Amino acid sequence: MELSQIQTPAVLIDIDVAERNIQDCQAYCDQHDITLRPHIKTHKLPRLAQAQIDAGAIGITCQKIGEAEVMAASGIKDILLTYNILGGAKLARLRTLHDEIKLSVTADNPVVLQGLSEAFADADWPLAVLIECDTGGNRCGVQSPQAAIELAEQIGQSMGLRFAGLMTYPAPGGTADVQAFMAKAKSMLGDNGYDCATVSSGGSPDLRQAHLAPIVDEYRVGTYIYNDRSLVTRGACALEDCALHVLATVISTPTPERAVIDAGSKVLTTDLFGLQGHGTVIGHGEVAVAGLSEEHGHLDCSKTPGCFTVGDRVRVVPNHVCVVSNMVDQVYLMDGDDVFAVEEVAARGKVV
Amino acid sequence: MELSQIQTPAVLIDIDVAERNIQDCQAYCDQHDITLRPHIKTHKLPRLAQAQIDAGAIGITCQKIGEAEVMAASGIKDILLTYNILGGAKLARLRTLHDEIKLSVTADNPVVLQGLSEAFADADWPLAVLIECDTGGNRCGVQSPQAAIELAEQIGQSMGLRFAGLMTYPAPGGTADVQAFMAKAKSMLGDNGYDCATVSSGGSPDLRQAHLAPIVDEYRVGTYIYNDRSLVTRGACALEDCALHVLATVISTPTPERAVIDAGSKVLTTDLFGLQGHGTVIGHGEVAVAGLSEEHGHLDCSKTPGCFTVGDRVRVVPNHVCVVSNMVDQVYLMDGDDVFAVEEVAARGKVV
Repeated sequence: MELSQIQTPAVLIDIDVAERNIQDCQAYCDQHDITLRPHIKTHKLPRLAQAQIDAGAIGITCQKIGEAEVMAASGIKDILLTYNILGGAKLARLRTLHDEIKLSVTADNPVVLQGLSEAFADADWPLAVLIECDTGGNRCGVQSPQAAIELAEQIGQSMGLRFAGLMTYPAPGGTADVQAFMAKAKSMLGDNGYDCATVSSGGSPDLRQAHLAPIVDEYRVGTYIYNDRSLVTRGACALEDCALHVLATVISTPTPERAVIDAGSKVLTTDLFGLQGHGTVIGHGEVAVAGLSEEHGHLDCSKTPGCFTVGDRVRVVPNHVCVVSNMVDQVYLMDGDDVFAVEEVAARGKVV
Repeated sequence: MELSQIQTPAVLIDIDVAERNIQDCQAYCDQHDITLRPHIKTHKLPRLAQAQIDAGAIGITCQKIGEAEVMAASGIKDILLTYNILGGAKLARLRTLHDEIKLSVTADNPVVLQGLSEAFADADWPLAVLIECDTGGNRCGVQSPQAAIELAEQIGQSMGLRFAGLMTYPAPGGTADVQAFMAKAKSMLGDNGYDCATVSSGGSPDLRQAHLAPIVDEYRVGTYIYNDRSLVTRGACALEDCALHVLATVISTPTPERAVIDAGSKVLTTDLFGLQGHGTVIGHGEVAVAGLSEEHGHLDCSKTPGCFTVGDRVRVVPNHVCVVSNMVDQVYLMDGDDVFAVEEVAARGKVV
């Protein structure tokens, strides 16, 4: 199958670029003696998770049990689930996974730990639990090193659980805050007799600053494998490092200043990440993806009126690539202009 | 299955509310002698498309061939595809559909008409084509009644095609503009010997003003079946008229002012529609859905600190309901707190 035969809109992955991104990130982590644990939310493909492991990653990160189930079924053996898991049905699924692979999870409150302990009390070996810390990201996580110690104590007293370390998802630019919080927490934990086997941080924007928080020994990163417009804008990569393009067709040119493509929010999503517009049109820096409805993308051609003809095809680098993978049942793995695989996005839509 | 057994996040449909919305809209259209052709993008469920037809709709509207294929396979017999279709593979699919059901399409430019004509030249009966007009929505559509006449002439000279009328997707508040454009175009078409069998308009926000553009004899509307926060905010419905709720669990309360739910952008999407926040938490008007990441929703509880406990469940009415249906493989059809069907979202993710 060739590029011209693909029905649009379609998500294309340049496998050479993705492979280069995998290697570059692994080389950086190797250089700084950081364990890499890629987050598969970006690609949701067992094939690329395996490629990340083959390149040297210790395992993968998932946020949903459904994602972990897909990855475990494909042969991935080491998964960190960075999410507070609650409820009997999900805990039962977690137990099943625990029997199959090397599973670890995170928690940031006593209610979650209580549920985990009840579900794993009679397990053959304990579940590894990392305590999530809020180092400035203002999402989940305990608010102080002292609170981390209290949860470590609860884990120590819980049947079926084992304290395995600390985890954080920092704010962009928060590397110094990670170092400060985690160093203090690890030290206090040591003083209280708790061995902090892993300190895990993550985030693509600050990947190359990871070594500036030497307390961190494991890094979780997802977007780097494809990259996107938000990372280009932050200076974290170049446009040429973006492995995922949305292929779209110009379906209407109602005025010379307006072209409409068949990729709308149902493919590109409305994630803005603080940017103007909804993507970068490759080779048309003067054209803005000015608006989206579900099935239409509005190209503002006012700087180059008449630059598109109905039937033209364009490639768009989306603002946020992880969410685009979640919108399609399949992606086209490209070797230049040749399709060498139409890959099911096996972990797409796993919301539970 | 009961509500308490559903793993979160989950999309719940109150079938009584949806049925009431179907009946109310049909009654309005009947009262004003307007043909109703619901857009199935909102629910993507053959079951509800059939309910809309059973209530009196003439047929349905789809925007993608993949959606139409799903609906045709389920037994729907009359489908308008409001989209410029281009390319051999899609045109072949359109031919197959044309053999199976009463199909009509729209077009707004000569290139699309040329492709349709080539694909349908040897069809047993002609394909009905409506000309899309831009009455102020600034998306697709010809820019003037004169341009509509030129396309009608092209249709008249094209093998395999039949001119079937005019279609528009107006700007919100654009009812008067629809009347002006369409009345002029229909009159000019008549002067040129073209019978304008159907004038089709649409849009949920202005549904109840449809009769104020009497030139319109068919109305396409999608969101009304579920309603959403954007329509509540516009005054088009009440919160109690919202049939779709996202059920979510509070998984973390890092501070008294912040609670985190397990519904993020992968369920609620980041569509804002000009609103502040990402949804309305039922029964908690003082709580804002202040931010979303893919798997986390951030509730701002600063007006009622400590109002949630880990494990609490909440229902969120999303900003834009159509895109939420597209994020999940299944929805729960609810009769009060009882699940009476777990329904596959059969037309989800049909991007081509």
